[in-house]
Amino acid sequence: MRLVAFIDVTELERVVREARVAGRVLARLPSHRKAIILEEMADAIERRMGEILRENQEDVAEARRGRIAPALVDRLLLDEDRVSAMADGVRAVAALGDPVGEVDHGWRLANGLQVVRQRVPFGVVAVIYEGRPNVTTDAAALCVASGNAAVLRGSRIARRSNRILAEVLAGALIEAEAPPGAIAMLGTDRDELRQLIQLEGLVDLVIPRGGEELKAFLKEHAKVPVIYAAAGNNHVYVDAGADLGMALKIAVNAKVSRPGVCNSAETLLVHRDEASAFLPAAVDALTGSGVELRVCASGLEILGDRANGLREATDEDYATEFLAMVMAVRVVDSLDAAVEHIDRFGSGHSEAIVTRSLASATEFQSAVDAACVYVNASTRFTDGGEFGMGAEIANSTQKLHARGPIGLTELTTVKYLVTGDGQVR
Amino acid sequence: MRLVAFIDVTELERVVREARVAGRVLARLPSHRKAIILEEMADAIERRMGEILRENQEDVAEARRGRIAPALVDRLLLDEDRVSAMADGVRAVAALGDPVGEVDHGWRLANGLQVVRQRVPFGVVAVIYEGRPNVTTDAAALCVASGNAAVLRGSRIARRSNRILAEVLAGALIEAEAPPGAIAMLGTDRDELRQLIQLEGLVDLVIPRGGEELKAFLKEHAKVPVIYAAAGNNHVYVDAGADLGMALKIAVNAKVSRPGVCNSAETLLVHRDEASAFLPAAVDALTGSGVELRVCASGLEILGDRANGLREATDEDYATEFLAMVMAVRVVDSLDAAVEHIDRFGSGHSEAIVTRSLASATEFQSAVDAACVYVNASTRFTDGGEFGMGAEIANSTQKLHARGPIGLTELTTVKYLVTGDGQVR
Repeated sequence: MRLVAFIDVTELERVVREARVAGRVLARLPSHRKAIILEEMADAIERRMGEILRENQEDVAEARRGRIAPALVDRLLLDEDRVSAMADGVRAVAALGDPVGEVDHGWRLANGLQVVRQRVPFGVVAVIYEGRPNVTTDAAALCVASGNAAVLRGSRIARRSNRILAEVLAGALIEAEAPPGAIAMLGTDRDELRQLIQLEGLVDLVIPRGGEELKAFLKEHAKVPVIYAAAGNNHVYVDAGADLGMALKIAVNAKVSRPGVCNSAETLLVHRDEASAFLPAAVDALTGSGVELRVCASGLEILGDRANGLREATDEDYATEFLAMVMAVRVVDSLDAAVEHIDRFGSGHSEAIVTRSLASATEFQSAVDAACVYVNASTRFTDGGEFGMGAEIANSTQKLHARGPIGLTELTTVKYLVTGDGQVR
Repeated sequence: MRLVAFIDVTELERVVREARVAGRVLARLPSHRKAIILEEMADAIERRMGEILRENQEDVAEARRGRIAPALVDRLLLDEDRVSAMADGVRAVAALGDPVGEVDHGWRLANGLQVVRQRVPFGVVAVIYEGRPNVTTDAAALCVASGNAAVLRGSRIARRSNRILAEVLAGALIEAEAPPGAIAMLGTDRDELRQLIQLEGLVDLVIPRGGEELKAFLKEHAKVPVIYAAAGNNHVYVDAGADLGMALKIAVNAKVSRPGVCNSAETLLVHRDEASAFLPAAVDALTGSGVELRVCASGLEILGDRANGLREATDEDYATEFLAMVMAVRVVDSLDAAVEHIDRFGSGHSEAIVTRSLASATEFQSAVDAACVYVNASTRFTDGGEFGMGAEIANSTQKLHARGPIGLTELTTVKYLVTGDGQVR
C-alpha cells in the first residue's frame, strides 16, 4: 500500500513543515535550554509591551466599531497589568517539571530485550482559540516547554495582537538560539483551517478551544488527531443527611464564583429527605446572589410561597450549559436517581456530591462517569492550575488520551525504546 | 448551549444503548467476577465447537464459491485446533492483571483536597475488523477484561461464524450472571457503520482493524474517538561498524519470518562503509529466501554482477508497505541520512538499527519518531504478546492515547476522584 502522498506545497503546508523541523529540534533540547527560551519569551513580552499594546488598541477599536459584545471586547483588551501577567504566565510554565524523557514504565522480556517506555513530544501541536490574546502566549509556552512546535490560530478580532505577539515570541526564539519556526501564527481564513486539520502526518495534534460550532466543524472535517475541550454541564448533588451548611456554601460557590466557565455548576440536585430543610435556604442564597432559578415541579411545591416568580425547570433546562447566572434545581428520590440524572444530562466534566455517608461518597465516585468527581468540594477546582499541574491548555471531557486538565504531560506521547543483542523472532 | 440531542432510537442505537448499560455493570465488577465470565466464555467456545464449525463451514463454502482469495479463505477457516486456540486466547486474557481501579497518580492540594487518578473503563468500545473469526473472541475477551462493553463488527464473509460466536459469548455472559448486552455483534451494512461511528456520547471508542479503505472511511465520517491501527512501513538500518552477521540475521528475520504483518520490515538501509561487505551477503540471503529486491542505483553499482535481474528502487517503492516477500534496499551516507529516509517514508511503527556504537544507538533512538525503536533486534517484536502485555487488540501508530501495542491498560481511561471537607474556590 502506498503511504506517502506527493501533494502541492501550499503556504500553509510550508509553515507547518517548517514547524515540524523546528519541533524536532525542540524535542531534543534539555530542560535548561527550554527554560532559557521561555525566560527570553517572557522578557521579550515585557520589553516590547508598547508595540503589543498599540496593536491591541487597534484590534479593540475595530471591535468597538463593529459592535462586538462588551464582554468579548473585555477579553480582547490588554493593558500593562495584563501583558505583565502574560509574561508571568510564561515564567510559571518555565518553572514546571519537564515531562520529556520521563520513563514511566520499563521491563525486560524473557528473551533479554530491554523495553523502556519514554515520554516524547507530539511534534506539531495546533491550538485553535478565540479572542483572548493571553492564550497565544500560554499555548506557545506550554508547547515549547513540552518540546512541541506550536501552530496557533487565534480569532480574527485579535489578529493584530496575535501577529505582534507571534513576532515577539519568534524573536525570543532566535535570541535564545532556537528555530523561530517553532511558533507559527496562522491567518483566520476558514479554508486554511480546513486544510490545517487535514494535514495528516504533519500536524500531530489539534486542540480546539472554542464553542460548539468550532467543535462541530472539526468533527466534520478533521483527519488529524483532536482533543476536544470541554463543555461542562455539571451538577452538585446534596445527599440525604448532608451537612446543609457545607452544601449551601458549595452550591453557591459552584454556580456564582465564575458562572461563565466550564467548571461551574448548572444544576443543583437535592435528595427529597433534605428538600424542605435545604431548598428555602438555597433559593434565598442563590437568588440573593443574583441567580435565576428553574425548579422542578416537586421543588416548587415544597417551596410553597417562596416559589412565586420561579420558573418550572424543563428537560431542556437540564440539558443546557447556561454559562450564566442561571441554575436548574431538581429534587431526586435517591442517590441512584441523581446518578441517573447526571448520566442523562451531564457532559462528563465535573460532578460533586455533598454527603456525610461513606457509602454514598464511594457509590457516587464509582457510578458517575466524569473526568472529575468531587466529594464535599466545589466543582470549580477542575483546573490545571488548581490541580497543581501548572497552566493548562484546556480541560478535556473526552476519554481518549487526556481526561481532565491538559497540562504539560498530556502534551506528550510515548515511545518504546527496545534494546537487544541480536534477538530475532 | 444545548448538550443533549433527542433523536429517533434506531435498532443500532438500541443495541449500543443496551451495551452502554451493560458496560456500566462490567465497569464495576471486581477482577474475580470478570475472570469467571472469561472462563465461562472459554468453556462455552469449546462446548459449542460443533455449532461453531458448522456455521464456519458455510461461510467458507460461500467464500470459495465466490472465488475469494485462498489466503483470505485460510484466515476465515476454523478447525478444532483453531477453535481451541480461541478458547485458550480468552483464558490467557483472564490471566492478565486488571487495570481497572489502578491508581497511577495521586496527591494532596494545598487546600487539603485529596486528588486520586484512577483507571476506569471507556464504556462502549467498538471494534471493526476483517474476516478472521478469532478476532471476535479476542476483542470480546479484551473488552470484558477491561470492563468495557464490546460492540463488534466483523466482515461479511465471516457473518455466520461471527453470529454463532456472538451467541455463544452472550450465552456465557448469562451463565456467569453478567448482562448479555455487553457483547453485541452488528451486521455488515455500510450505512450502519456510518451511523455507528457518529453515535457521539454512546460509543466511547472505535478501533478499526482493517485496510486503508476502512481507515479513510472513518477519517471521513467518524465523530466519536478512534484509535487508528497501524500500517508498518518499517526499516532496518545497518550502521557503520555493525556486526554484519547480526545485521544479516535481523534483516532476514524482519522481512521473511512473516512478511504479511505490520511489524515486518520493508526497506533495508545500509551505511556506505559496510555496503561492499554487507550487500552481497544480504542479497544472497534474502533472494535465497525468496525475497524480491528493489535496490538503489548506488547499491546496484556496488553489487556489480550480482545486480543482474534486480530492479532499481524508486521513491514509490520506499513509500510502499509491501506486506509481501518484496524488500527495498538503499545505501545511505550516514546515520543522519538513514533517519531522514525514515522520517520521509516511515509510518512511525517499528524501526531498527544494528550497531556497535553507543552514540549511534542513542542518536537513532532519540531522532527516529516511531512507536518502537529497536537497537540490535528485529522489528518483529512489536506485539502485545511479545511485549508481555498479553493479547493485543491492535498496534497503534498514532500518538494520541495509545502508541504501540493496545492491550488492556490502553482500553481504559482515567477519572480524577477528588475528596474534601467543604472546600470552595
